[in-house]
Amino acid sequence: MEVIALLTDFGTEDYYVGSVKGVILSINPNARLTDITHDIPPQDIEAGAFTLFASHSTFPAQTIFLAVVDPGVGSARRPIVVQAEDYFFVGPDNGLFSYLYGTTHQSFHVTNEKYFRHPVAPTFHGRDVFGPIAGYLSKERKPSVFGPAIEDEVRLPPLSLTRMADHVWHGRIIHIDHFGNCITNISREALNERREAGARLTVKQKTITSFKNFFTEDDGDQELFAVWGSAGFLEIAALKRSAAEILKAKRGDLVTLEVE
Amino acid sequence: MEVIALLTDFGTEDYYVGSVKGVILSINPNARLTDITHDIPPQDIEAGAFTLFASHSTFPAQTIFLAVVDPGVGSARRPIVVQAEDYFFVGPDNGLFSYLYGTTHQSFHVTNEKYFRHPVAPTFHGRDVFGPIAGYLSKERKPSVFGPAIEDEVRLPPLSLTRMADHVWHGRIIHIDHFGNCITNISREALNERREAGARLTVKQKTITSFKNFFTEDDGDQELFAVWGSAGFLEIAALKRSAAEILKAKRGDLVTLEVE
Amino acid sequence: MEVIALLTDFGTEDYYVGSVKGVILSINPNARLTDITHDIPPQDIEAGAFTLFASHSTFPAQTIFLAVVDPGVGSARRPIVVQAEDYFFVGPDNGLFSYLYGTTHQSFHVTNEKYFRHPVAPTFHGRDVFGPIAGYLSKERKPSVFGPAIEDEVRLPPLSLTRMADHVWHGRIIHIDHFGNCITNISREALNERREAGARLTVKQKTITSFKNFFTEDDGDQELFAVWGSAGFLEIAALKRSAAEILKAKRGDLVTLEVE
Repeated sequence: MEVIALLTDFGTEDYYVGSVKGVILSINPNARLTDITHDIPPQDIEAGAFTLFASHSTFPAQTIFLAVVDPGVGSARRPIVVQAEDYFFVGPDNGLFSYLYGTTHQSFHVTNEKYFRHPVAPTFHGRDVFGPIAGYLSKERKPSVFGPAIEDEVRLPPLSLTRMADHVWHGRIIHIDHFGNCITNISREALNERREAGARLTVKQKTITSFKNFFTEDDGDQELFAVWGSAGFLEIAALKRSAAEILKAKRGDLVTLEVE
Repeated sequence: MEVIALLTDFGTEDYYVGSVKGVILSINPNARLTDITHDIPPQDIEAGAFTLFASHSTFPAQTIFLAVVDPGVGSARRPIVVQAEDYFFVGPDNGLFSYLYGTTHQSFHVTNEKYFRHPVAPTFHGRDVFGPIAGYLSKERKPSVFGPAIEDEVRLPPLSLTRMADHVWHGRIIHIDHFGNCITNISREALNERREAGARLTVKQKTITSFKNFFTEDDGDQELFAVWGSAGFLEIAALKRSAAEILKAKRGDLVTLEVE
Repeated sequence: MEVIALLTDFGTEDYYVGSVKGVILSINPNARLTDITHDIPPQDIEAGAFTLFASHSTFPAQTIFLAVVDPGVGSARRPIVVQAEDYFFVGPDNGLFSYLYGTTHQSFHVTNEKYFRHPVAPTFHGRDVFGPIAGYLSKERKPSVFGPAIEDEVRLPPLSLTRMADHVWHGRIIHIDHFGNCITNISREALNERREAGARLTVKQKTITSFKNFFTEDDGDQELFAVWGSAGFLEIAALKRSAAEILKAKRGDLVTLEVE
């Protein structure tokens, strides 16, 4: 089995996704193409990084993730292959794989152009560079054939809180999902179960003190509440409504956490 | 061949669909994942039930349908496996499978937690409960291993008309499709071909008396017309326009049927 | 390997795509279904033709393309199978395959109804006519079994420019993509590299004289620029913005090209 999981900001209405799939199947007819999403907001590297981070670990070992959110397509930014955990990641070196870099990962700068589709269109490396690399990688999992190892990958700022005072942290909304839940960067490490009792979140001048285990758990009439999300982060949610709409929140908005 | 067909309200922009696919492929690398849709309106059980009902019967026997529209995720509502016709259905017991229950179906309450992905996130049973069940079910089709048989599944009201007078029925719009066609709950049983001649539909104060066999059939200058849809129900349509927009109709709107 | 690539205007929110996939898998369990797109604008044959044209050639030889953008569904328009290049195309004869017709292609009018799914719904030939044809074709690649050869396929106007004067051509925007790039019908044949130097594009009263190789190439402060797109046509783009929004452009808009 050679699973290749696709994550892009291509949208689904153009010929882009089809072209990439065709290229891969032409190189490796046994590849099993699986769509994670093609609806990352255009050129939003951070959203792509988060989505890849939150979804990858359910996939079988040896899965190849082809991730293309690539505002610098055609420029000198490097195409890379990353081996991390039990997986492979193929895409541009622009921070997209930031949250996957651990102590034992290895990255390779793809310089060997014999693995590209020629002529390479400077506006579509998904089809002519990254798709072919993923296809060849799925046939023989040796990332070193593509080019030299590197250690200076581009990295996004980490997903951690900023301590402002003794009991006060600043975080932010890192993702707003399809249901309007606002996913913050507050993790269990930052806020353990014990301290939840007296904790208080402030977002866009609204204060949230209700912590639930699941969405429909009864907790009086609170319009907004917090719930631990499935990616390991605290989410701000509303019952059968969009919390993001109530808050008029957008990704990046400040979240203040106070504990007792 | 182990086809698993997916239907959810997860949308396509988050990590949710990818996570579910990864889990299934990790359990059964031979599963053939097929997307029906992930664009059921958020938490709209009735829309999910209709879509599943209208699409399932084209699939090969033994197909497993993984259907997750689950506003009560994390609460006490039961995860179930249903065996009906020649198919299996996995999802929450909230009415989603209502239109598939016949005289010979069997349902099982999934209580055996060894088939879950642990720890189970109370907000994402698609990944941690239903996905794994579908994966294991695809390896060995014995739904009884998951838990006890049940007979009291939650059911939506049936898709039938209400008789108001001798020649008058009340129905409703049960789905508005991508093209703006308004699918009603008027079936061939309720309105046979003979009676169509003098029939009259009233929706949102507009009266429709034109019955066509296909969209571009010539029938004078009627703005709106009725046509038998591919799911076996009468649809209200407009030529190369959205009937829903013309009518400002939404799902649930009353449709009055009068025959002579 | 039996790749069947799907392109439709069905959207992704209804039961339509799932129904077609189920039908194909019921006929040929070994078919490998691959989505190109289901988001062609409703009934927009030209957009479907362009997308198919721009994506098909990356696919492996023998791929079957099932393309359904079919405003005339149910009417007398012909279902056809086209063999072109190393590929097969299945869909309605309404111009959808126009850009694929070359000197050696062969087309067949599908008249043999034993390959249909019965009863055929006059509103859903994707499920009852085209899907089944694609399924059977994938089992045995003999398009002549479906019906007689034809040579009078419906064709869209070609994707070429109109010469207005010695150094002036009229073209048009043939597609606006997910990023807001406006793809014109100006090809390399019409505008070679040498002549680019003094060329000038005018669209919606804006003049564009900047020609870039890739989106982020530095070229002063030009709001709008032209770039050669991955389908072989000149595109009008803007840096990290939607050129279509800036121009308030829509498909079909006039593009004037002047060269020195």
